[in-house]
Amino acid sequence: MQVSVFHTPELVPEGTPDCAVAVDVLRATSTIATALANGATAVQVYADLEALGAAAAGYPREDILRGGERGGKQVEGFDFGNSPLYCTSERVAGKRIFMSTTNGTRTLERIRHAPVVLTAALVNVGFVARYIRSQAFETVWVVGSGWQGNFSLEDTVCAGALVEQLGGAANDEAVAAAALFDTWEGDLIELLERASHGQRLLKLGLLDDIVYCAALDTVSALPRQTAAGVLVQGMA
Amino acid sequence: MQVSVFHTPELVPEGTPDCAVAVDVLRATSTIATALANGATAVQVYADLEALGAAAAGYPREDILRGGERGGKQVEGFDFGNSPLYCTSERVAGKRIFMSTTNGTRTLERIRHAPVVLTAALVNVGFVARYIRSQAFETVWVVGSGWQGNFSLEDTVCAGALVEQLGGAANDEAVAAAALFDTWEGDLIELLERASHGQRLLKLGLLDDIVYCAALDTVSALPRQTAAGVLVQGMA
Repeated sequence: MQVSVFHTPELVPEGTPDCAVAVDVLRATSTIATALANGATAVQVYADLEALGAAAAGYPREDILRGGERGGKQVEGFDFGNSPLYCTSERVAGKRIFMSTTNGTRTLERIRHAPVVLTAALVNVGFVARYIRSQAFETVWVVGSGWQGNFSLEDTVCAGALVEQLGGAANDEAVAAAALFDTWEGDLIELLERASHGQRLLKLGLLDDIVYCAALDTVSALPRQTAAGVLVQGMA
Repeated sequence: MQVSVFHTPELVPEGTPDCAVAVDVLRATSTIATALANGATAVQVYADLEALGAAAAGYPREDILRGGERGGKQVEGFDFGNSPLYCTSERVAGKRIFMSTTNGTRTLERIRHAPVVLTAALVNVGFVARYIRSQAFETVWVVGSGWQGNFSLEDTVCAGALVEQLGGAANDEAVAAAALFDTWEGDLIELLERASHGQRLLKLGLLDDIVYCAALDTVSALPRQTAAGVLVQGMA
């Protein structure tokens, strides 16, 4: 298995791997994993609030939840922001979740042509790695979402956790990511607090979100894309 | 001091730092440091062989040396390839060196507007760090050259050595680079052998170059850009 890491969707080259994994630890892919593990029917992601609203309008109000933030605040009229902590089974079981996430959506868009598209976060990286190992994929691309086109520490470390478990680092980014995971594996909360996006969340008072997103392998979810931006719990 | 790292020239944002440092460990900035420390008058770098030839034609033949490779082989009629091992004081003292380097030239081009532009490699990173620490720079940008637009492990680790010595990591890339330097500081030869560009050089039989470029702080050089692509030994 050849595992390549790309720091941001902008750095993904031409071509199509057998499997592509989108990572957005703070917080889109942590929230997706949590919602699906707790029984959400699907999570649909959008960069744009209008497109989200239009898609959500096709479903009965009681069957859906809408999540999204602008400027660090929950969008007015929405059910939640972007926090995975909202997504308890009491709230999300049986619901279709429409979620706004700029960086995560761009990543899923960039890798949509791969035959298998998954999402991973620290909370479910082991679960995703087990599935990938069980398949006969020759090439796997792990793509960080970053922040407005820039490298993000937490996405790269999560990508490194995948490389560690899959082996076969196929580019310099993969070698570096695995080494960074080794460095921080024992202190992922500190990692997320040092990361620039973690610092933004801390300023918003979201330490609980950071602590949750820093926990390794607490969620049994294999989020798999079935249509553009639509993620369901895949078969593991 | 705020030290930011950018993996490639393409990722450098708008704006102008007080000091910018170009890194191309394999092998342009290792060769530049070596040539200047051994008495070369200047090293002038070019992406393009024609531009190099035109510039070199303005000097008496006995005053210059031309270095460059295409497809892993020394350019016909040139004095050397890109190897720092060629640049002994017997050969380079008093000479003006015209060198072809695609990635390194692009990096220097991208940061040319900074008031102070330096180059660093593992062989002279401590020397460069001492100079930077002695100045009252508020912002320092360290820019890896990468390989055809991609992240390179060896440039990032060298950038990390600078961050370690300067403090003040100002972006996620800088935090990660410093951690990668910590990981490999004790085994830089292995690092360069694992890096994809190191593997290309190994296939060309250039292990001696790798071993030379992996040695930390063996060269006392502060290469400083005085005009576009023209590097001289600066005052430390």
